[in-house]
Amino acid sequence: MLAAGAMDAVAELPSVALVFYGDPAVIEPRLAGTRHRVVAAKRCIELDDPLRATLRGALPSSMRAAVAAVATGDADAVVSAGSTGALMALSRHLIGMLPGIRRPAIVKALAGEGGREFHLLDLGANIGADAAQLHQFAHMGAAAAIKAGASQPTVGLLNIGSEVSKGPWVVRAAAELVASDGRLRYAGFVEPDRMFAAGPDVVVADGFAGNIALKAAEGAARMARYLLAEQLRAANVGELRQRLQNAGEAYNPQRYNGAILLGLASLVVKSHGKADRHGFASAVRQAAAAHTGTLVAEVAGRA
Amino acid sequence: MLAAGAMDAVAELPSVALVFYGDPAVIEPRLAGTRHRVVAAKRCIELDDPLRATLRGALPSSMRAAVAAVATGDADAVVSAGSTGALMALSRHLIGMLPGIRRPAIVKALAGEGGREFHLLDLGANIGADAAQLHQFAHMGAAAAIKAGASQPTVGLLNIGSEVSKGPWVVRAAAELVASDGRLRYAGFVEPDRMFAAGPDVVVADGFAGNIALKAAEGAARMARYLLAEQLRAANVGELRQRLQNAGEAYNPQRYNGAILLGLASLVVKSHGKADRHGFASAVRQAAAAHTGTLVAEVAGRA
Repeated sequence: MLAAGAMDAVAELPSVALVFYGDPAVIEPRLAGTRHRVVAAKRCIELDDPLRATLRGALPSSMRAAVAAVATGDADAVVSAGSTGALMALSRHLIGMLPGIRRPAIVKALAGEGGREFHLLDLGANIGADAAQLHQFAHMGAAAAIKAGASQPTVGLLNIGSEVSKGPWVVRAAAELVASDGRLRYAGFVEPDRMFAAGPDVVVADGFAGNIALKAAEGAARMARYLLAEQLRAANVGELRQRLQNAGEAYNPQRYNGAILLGLASLVVKSHGKADRHGFASAVRQAAAAHTGTLVAEVAGRA
Repeated sequence: MLAAGAMDAVAELPSVALVFYGDPAVIEPRLAGTRHRVVAAKRCIELDDPLRATLRGALPSSMRAAVAAVATGDADAVVSAGSTGALMALSRHLIGMLPGIRRPAIVKALAGEGGREFHLLDLGANIGADAAQLHQFAHMGAAAAIKAGASQPTVGLLNIGSEVSKGPWVVRAAAELVASDGRLRYAGFVEPDRMFAAGPDVVVADGFAGNIALKAAEGAARMARYLLAEQLRAANVGELRQRLQNAGEAYNPQRYNGAILLGLASLVVKSHGKADRHGFASAVRQAAAAHTGTLVAEVAGRA
């Protein structure tokens, strides 16, 4: 299936020839009469393969063979659906980094509102990153955005608030580096709920936060599709509109407005600052229910 | 508007009397003939109020007065739509923590697929948290889930992979604490794209990651509503289904499959492990386009 997808992709790109690394018995029959070829590499990387053995080649694999082909110049690019960690480690070991770049970052173009596109990185190559690395990611993301058509991409840093005092120290330190870099157009901190709307062209995060943001958005999008599929059984547009409206209300964030500050000796409920009348009612209802339900005592009993 | 929402909330809760802290001239006219009352407190907390002055009472505010009322027992709970940071600081200072609990955590119930509900915490009370704190958040979240109706809530830790070796050291250390705690039902690591589907009843994270996950999900949900609203102009169900299908394909994650490992000396593209034929084609197309567009050279030029 992946081989078929690869051949779909290059069907209209006559200058691209594919080299598959895998089991010829499976792939070769598909390649007869094409410009593509297969290199035998029977073993797949397993998640529990010891990294050191993988890197020094004691554990040959199709992924290692494909990355090595790029490293030696036999191929111009490698595409893998295998383990990110193994791909990253093999690539650093066999291909190496560009001069001056300390750590790789994973970048992806995402669709925003109105057909706009933005680039999010790092998506998981690094767990944590220092300010200088985040600054370097900003340049790498800008490069990706430029190649995707942005002429002077704006760059923001993923954070949990837009005020300069918000977030972890390392993100604030990176903000100073990016803001004072004349080669970058700094757009400030970006909260992840604004990424899809009018956010900057490039959103920079360490690999943990970036991966969390990407996967949370994917989960919410999947949930939206699930809700929609449920409602599409409607008989006509009128009924469908009504069903969608009902579903929308059931999952309206305002209905879920109100967060409880746990661990305090009394009950404190935080409403969203932009809550409307219904949203604020929901927060007050939560406070009443938590009081009646003796939530604070339950927490105290577990401390 | 918030006052009206609060009164909506308690309309059917005759045992709850509201005390408003604010400008009587604004609120009092609404309260005639009700059991609710207002305490004059004219000043709102501003985002740039110095924290120390706020805490010691040099800067009186409606928020401080309301939190103080809970601290003295004049009120059972406080609900505020003001600054989270100020509410947290005032609550810790005036109300104090429960014995044995080191740091508060913000928890919220979220709607998952099929009407299930789950609790996510911390949503931003703490930037970072050590393993013992995450363990304590697990207990606090379990308490909230129990009070919301779960009899033996399952607890997972938010992470970027489900394997035990994944993620930051602190999350892995917390996993050991939670897994070996006989009073908790540990459900392992939870990737945020699985939270809404069949995830555990409680999802635990530090305040930075939790807030990022929540806001990214909110952003994706808003984007889904935006896309839906655009399509609902259709004339009939047949056309609407077609329009939704087209929109769904335009924003299909498979269409956006393929992430580039930037910073390496050659081109390496990671496809999602679960990519289908179309998704893998998209990753291969990206590799071809990035090669033609000399992306690696652009990154090298910025290093």
